[in-house]
Amino acid sequence: MKENTAQEKKKRVSKPVIKRLPRYRRFLGELMKEGVERISSAKLSELMGYTASQIRQDLNNFGAFGQQGYGYKVDFLYEQIGNIMGLDKEYYIIVVGFGRLGQAMAGYIDQYEKQFKIAGIFDVPDKASSIEFKDVYVSDMDSLKAFCKKHRVDMAVLTVPRSEAQHACDTVVDAGIKGIWNFTSVDLKLPEDVYCENVHMSDSLHELSYHLNE
Amino acid sequence: MKENTAQEKKKRVSKPVIKRLPRYRRFLGELMKEGVERISSAKLSELMGYTASQIRQDLNNFGAFGQQGYGYKVDFLYEQIGNIMGLDKEYYIIVVGFGRLGQAMAGYIDQYEKQFKIAGIFDVPDKASSIEFKDVYVSDMDSLKAFCKKHRVDMAVLTVPRSEAQHACDTVVDAGIKGIWNFTSVDLKLPEDVYCENVHMSDSLHELSYHLNE
Repeated sequence: MKENTAQEKKKRVSKPVIKRLPRYRRFLGELMKEGVERISSAKLSELMGYTASQIRQDLNNFGAFGQQGYGYKVDFLYEQIGNIMGLDKEYYIIVVGFGRLGQAMAGYIDQYEKQFKIAGIFDVPDKASSIEFKDVYVSDMDSLKAFCKKHRVDMAVLTVPRSEAQHACDTVVDAGIKGIWNFTSVDLKLPEDVYCENVHMSDSLHELSYHLNE
Repeated sequence: MKENTAQEKKKRVSKPVIKRLPRYRRFLGELMKEGVERISSAKLSELMGYTASQIRQDLNNFGAFGQQGYGYKVDFLYEQIGNIMGLDKEYYIIVVGFGRLGQAMAGYIDQYEKQFKIAGIFDVPDKASSIEFKDVYVSDMDSLKAFCKKHRVDMAVLTVPRSEAQHACDTVVDAGIKGIWNFTSVDLKLPEDVYCENVHMSDSLHELSYHLNE
């Protein structure tokens, strides 16, 4: 299977499958670290808690057929899924809001997400320039649009307070950015050509409290 | 509908519905802030992007029937969902790992999650005591179990580095804590009676990169 095939196939992949792919990739990455070269759908099923038939169905979606009695090649599948997720490319990302959470996310990206480069950091004027991260200074929000005209920016991480979320989002959209990683807990109003991935802390915490009461 | 009814009903509620409930509650909370007193499933559908029929089905699950031509009472439904999620109670939570992410999460909980009280903070010895959050000092991980014997602790937020994730998890489980909010990006090995809610940053970021390439 070549990357082209993966690119062609991915148009038909459903949303729930897309949601599961990063998890497959994570598990496969762990297996690679442990030196595992191939794995059956039955064994993957044990590890991941999906049924073997669901795994076969999911992976068939993009043409990664396991072989009877051989299973899947771990490194090939890891790379294949990475390509499908677009992780064979680099992305330039700006951090908007540089409080504790913004700093944590910048640190996370810098340490763990090698394909994602921190291009710029923005905050309100009194925070701008007073701090820096690695060799990136924190700039005034007002300069965001001009910055995006000069530099390639693919995504913005939004970590501003709730009250400023929609305004920061509008600024980012106005600057032409098409991908938003949203940590503000606000459901943002967006044009159709901008994709927003939400990390709703409260949803996750409240699910935990639900399960503690089961 | 009384809380008892909600408690009885929730046993039969499916996992995807549970996953949607915090989102319903968030939207209802916004409507309350805007002074909206009642809402139809059609209007909720417009706001939330679920179909009206799915909304009616979801909410019927725990006995919150909308009335024809009247719709749902917003504050009642908000409270009802909160009760189902266990948000009518208080929870005592410890933060394990007090780097940037641990500090960000402590700040988030303190500011936005009033039912969740920060009971303690733990980190490795050289970080312990050197910092504090509000009136809580950072204690040595070695004292975690003893702390949990003395104080009520319902949950632990895990924000330690990946390499220490399983060890920190084992410590928390050994101390008798039954709920883990896991930010370590590691799929933890857990006994069956411990519930773990994972926030996998990378899954969410990689989904974003997927959609940027669509």
